[in-house]
Amino acid sequence: MASNDIVTAGLLVIGDEILSGRTKDKNIGYIAEYLTAIGIDLKEVRVVPDDEDEIVAAVNAMRSRYSYLFTTGGIGPTHDDITADSVAKAFGVAVMEDQRIIEMLLTRFKPEDLHEGRRRMARVPHGADLVPNPVSRVPGFRIENVIVMAGIPAVMQGMLDGVAPSLQTGIKMLSVSIRADSREGDIALPFGAVAKAHPDVIMGSYPFSDDRGPNTNLVLRSRDPEKLAAAKEAVEDMLIAVRGKAA
Amino acid sequence: MASNDIVTAGLLVIGDEILSGRTKDKNIGYIAEYLTAIGIDLKEVRVVPDDEDEIVAAVNAMRSRYSYLFTTGGIGPTHDDITADSVAKAFGVAVMEDQRIIEMLLTRFKPEDLHEGRRRMARVPHGADLVPNPVSRVPGFRIENVIVMAGIPAVMQGMLDGVAPSLQTGIKMLSVSIRADSREGDIALPFGAVAKAHPDVIMGSYPFSDDRGPNTNLVLRSRDPEKLAAAKEAVEDMLIAVRGKAA
Repeated sequence: MASNDIVTAGLLVIGDEILSGRTKDKNIGYIAEYLTAIGIDLKEVRVVPDDEDEIVAAVNAMRSRYSYLFTTGGIGPTHDDITADSVAKAFGVAVMEDQRIIEMLLTRFKPEDLHEGRRRMARVPHGADLVPNPVSRVPGFRIENVIVMAGIPAVMQGMLDGVAPSLQTGIKMLSVSIRADSREGDIALPFGAVAKAHPDVIMGSYPFSDDRGPNTNLVLRSRDPEKLAAAKEAVEDMLIAVRGKAA
Repeated sequence: MASNDIVTAGLLVIGDEILSGRTKDKNIGYIAEYLTAIGIDLKEVRVVPDDEDEIVAAVNAMRSRYSYLFTTGGIGPTHDDITADSVAKAFGVAVMEDQRIIEMLLTRFKPEDLHEGRRRMARVPHGADLVPNPVSRVPGFRIENVIVMAGIPAVMQGMLDGVAPSLQTGIKMLSVSIRADSREGDIALPFGAVAKAHPDVIMGSYPFSDDRGPNTNLVLRSRDPEKLAAAKEAVEDMLIAVRGKAA
């Protein structure tokens, strides 16, 4: 499989309120599932505070490593919303007031109410494209491979829907989940042997408990449907053999 | 305030299943809130895949930066549980089978059932201390300032309770939340002015909507109760002035 069939992403969550625990993040899981479904591999997530140096360092570390970097948070009208300035600084470009956003704001606010605070929401790095916001209208933006979205989940989700069609996507990662009906420790060795024999299929083991006691989900992932099917069969045969021995 | 009054932490979440979106992380918010409550500032979170190089790089980047580094995930019996090996590699030490864990496992399993897979759970970096696990008994471990915990929330929470009394903690960050009864954009400028006048109090603004329409929570944080009280009064005066102008 050529390497250009794989499209990767990083996610940078910006906000003191996530790190203090006051706000519980709801975006990481949503974005992870969304990107997986459209054929983009989320490879890393970072959560950093509302601190320009921290944001700049994380943006530059992650944008160079992955096909795309998504950010959430810090694009509102208040003094603690510093994402646009920080991303501009990471790219070494100026922050501009975007006339398209000013016009959009003027459809919502009277000119006399469009003060400096609200105008902050129109500031984007020079050369950025806008990411539409179907929920509350004030857009996010995109500069090169960095996509800057709001932190409020409903707004972020609308922006992700808006930007997704413009993204390059790779061959989708396929997955199957197999309920082992065994304790994780009882299948650890044979499962490891099956994983070793199927190196192109990523295999993970996730213990859980329900009314019937300890159990395990085995998750197999591959971009190749035939290899995935062969690995699934091997895992199912392994489970039958283990349960036979246990009985 | 002396710098040793501030104790910081990083959190490293290890697991393909979080990045694929299959499992939604429940540990970040819990740990953030827990550490804040005991006087440790969570400064950064990273989520990385089950990949040794990625884990080693993140452990080394974060353990040198913060007073403590907590990790979750990857300490079970299967081939994809590589946290102990990765942390040992980050410290440049060998992984040893810990006799205390073997003995504990022998209270749960017959010697003939204690195969190589289950014995994996006894492997810890040389020199590590154990972190007790009141839920499912197999412990986590601590090496220098790195605390390695399970990924299953109930187990992680038990381990955190076990390790917390041994941690150095700083002066607690205090916070107050003020419901603005204003739209975020309407208070952005005066709120920024109050923040500027109270540089030792961190002020954040969090818009939300309820039945009565758009609203904003203002969160003020400081380690100094007097400075926090003065800032709270200034914010409340500001809100009265803004609402008076709007009425």
